[in-house]
Amino acid sequence: MTTVIIGSGNVAWHMAKAFKQAGIELVQVFGRNEKELHKLSQEVGVAYSTQELTRADFYLICTSDKAIHEVSKLINYENVLVAHTSGSLSREALEGSYRKASFYPLQTFSKARALDYSRLPFFVDAGWEADNILLMNLAKKISNNVAQINHHQRKQMHLSAVFACNFVNHLYARAQQICQHNDIPFDFLLPLIEETADKIKTLSPMEAQTGPAVRNDQNVIEFQESLISNSELLKVYKTLTESIIKMYEL
Amino acid sequence: MTTVIIGSGNVAWHMAKAFKQAGIELVQVFGRNEKELHKLSQEVGVAYSTQELTRADFYLICTSDKAIHEVSKLINYENVLVAHTSGSLSREALEGSYRKASFYPLQTFSKARALDYSRLPFFVDAGWEADNILLMNLAKKISNNVAQINHHQRKQMHLSAVFACNFVNHLYARAQQICQHNDIPFDFLLPLIEETADKIKTLSPMEAQTGPAVRNDQNVIEFQESLISNSELLKVYKTLTESIIKMYEL
Repeated sequence: MTTVIIGSGNVAWHMAKAFKQAGIELVQVFGRNEKELHKLSQEVGVAYSTQELTRADFYLICTSDKAIHEVSKLINYENVLVAHTSGSLSREALEGSYRKASFYPLQTFSKARALDYSRLPFFVDAGWEADNILLMNLAKKISNNVAQINHHQRKQMHLSAVFACNFVNHLYARAQQICQHNDIPFDFLLPLIEETADKIKTLSPMEAQTGPAVRNDQNVIEFQESLISNSELLKVYKTLTESIIKMYEL
Repeated sequence: MTTVIIGSGNVAWHMAKAFKQAGIELVQVFGRNEKELHKLSQEVGVAYSTQELTRADFYLICTSDKAIHEVSKLINYENVLVAHTSGSLSREALEGSYRKASFYPLQTFSKARALDYSRLPFFVDAGWEADNILLMNLAKKISNNVAQINHHQRKQMHLSAVFACNFVNHLYARAQQICQHNDIPFDFLLPLIEETADKIKTLSPMEAQTGPAVRNDQNVIEFQESLISNSELLKVYKTLTESIIKMYEL
C-alpha cells in the first residue's frame, strides 16, 4: 500500500517519521510550505511537492483542522482512502468521492522532540469495515496501542487530552514563570513534576490529589493568593482551586 | 543527633521513612491521631506517643500549617533545634525558646505511594549558620538535591509547586472524568501524560506548548466549549485557554 502525507507541521513530521520507521511505503510529502516540506523530505528521505499530488492508495491529511476541508478537495482520485488526523472533525469534513476515515494519533508532537512511536495510541474510524481493518493493521505496524473509536468518543478523547496535556503544560509554563521571577532554578521542580505524572499509574488522580485546595485550607489559599501579582495567574489559581474544592465536595 | 517527628499525616509518614532509611536516629513519632501514629510506628519501627514528647536534639513538625503554631508550643526545651516542613510559614510561626528553622521537602506525598528519596529536593533555612550546616548535612543523608533558600523564595517555590503538581493532578482528574463519562479507558492518556512531563526536560514549557489555544484556533476552541456540559469544567477550560493565549500574545 502506497501512502502520501499531506502537511508539514508537527503532526505531519512525526507521522512521516513513524511511517518510514515502520516500513510503510511513503511515496510523497505534500503541502504548501516548501521550506518545511524540504526539511521533512530530507529528514525521512522521501520526495515532496507543493504542486502535484502523487497517486497513492492512502492519503493522510495532517494539517490543522481549518485547512482540512480545502486540502481534501485536492485529492481527485476515486478508488483511494483518505484520512485526517483531527481529534475533532468528522470524516465528512473530507470532500471528495474517495473512501473517508479518521486516523487519530493521541500525543503532543513537536518537531524538536523525538518520540518512541511503539506505545503511541492510534484511533481509527472508517466508513467501511474493510477500511477499519486496513487502518488498524497500518497503525499496528507503528504501535501496539491501537483502537477503533467512534466520532463522539474521539471528540471527547481530544477534549480530555487538552486538559491532560495542553493545559498541564501551560501550568508547567506558569510554574516556570514564578521560578524565573524569584531566581529559583526551575529544575528543582522536575522530581515533583515527574512524581505527579508517575503517581497516577498506581493511584487514581482523585486519590492522588494533595495541596491546600483538597484540604480546603483557606489560610494557605488566601496567603498564596496574596503572593500573586499577575492578574491572569491569579485567575488561574482561583479557578483551579475552586474546581478542586467543588470536585471533593460532591 | 536524635530526632523526633511530629505529626502523622502524609509528610510525617514520608519524613519518618526517609529518616529511618538514611540511618538518622529517630527516637519518637509524636502527635494526636493515635491510630495513624500507631501505623507509622509499626511501619518504621519507632516509638510513638500522643502524650509525652521525648527529649531530642531536633524536632521536625510535619503537621498542616494551621496546627504548627500550637504544636510548636509543646516543645519546652531550650537547647534544641525545631523546624517545620511548611512551604509558606516563616520560622517565626514556631513559638518557643529553642533555635528555629524551616526544613521543606518539595514533593507530593501520599502514604499509599512509595518514593525514592534520593532525588527529593530539600530546602533549609535556619536562623543560625551552624544550624544551616547541620540541616544541610541532615538533608544530604537523605538526598543529593539540597539547597538553602530564604523565606521569600520558599513561599514562591511552594506556589509554583501548587501549579506544577496540585493543579496538574487536578487536570488529570478532570481528564479522567471526561473519559469515564464517555466510556473511554483513561489508560489511553498515559503515554500522553508521560510525554508531556518528559518533554520539558529537553524543551522549555513555553516551547513545548501544543494544542488549539497556543495556535489561537478559535474554531476548535468554540467547538470544544460546546462539548462541555459541566459548568465548572467549562470555567477551567475557558480560564486556561485564555491564559495560554495571553502568554503567547506578549
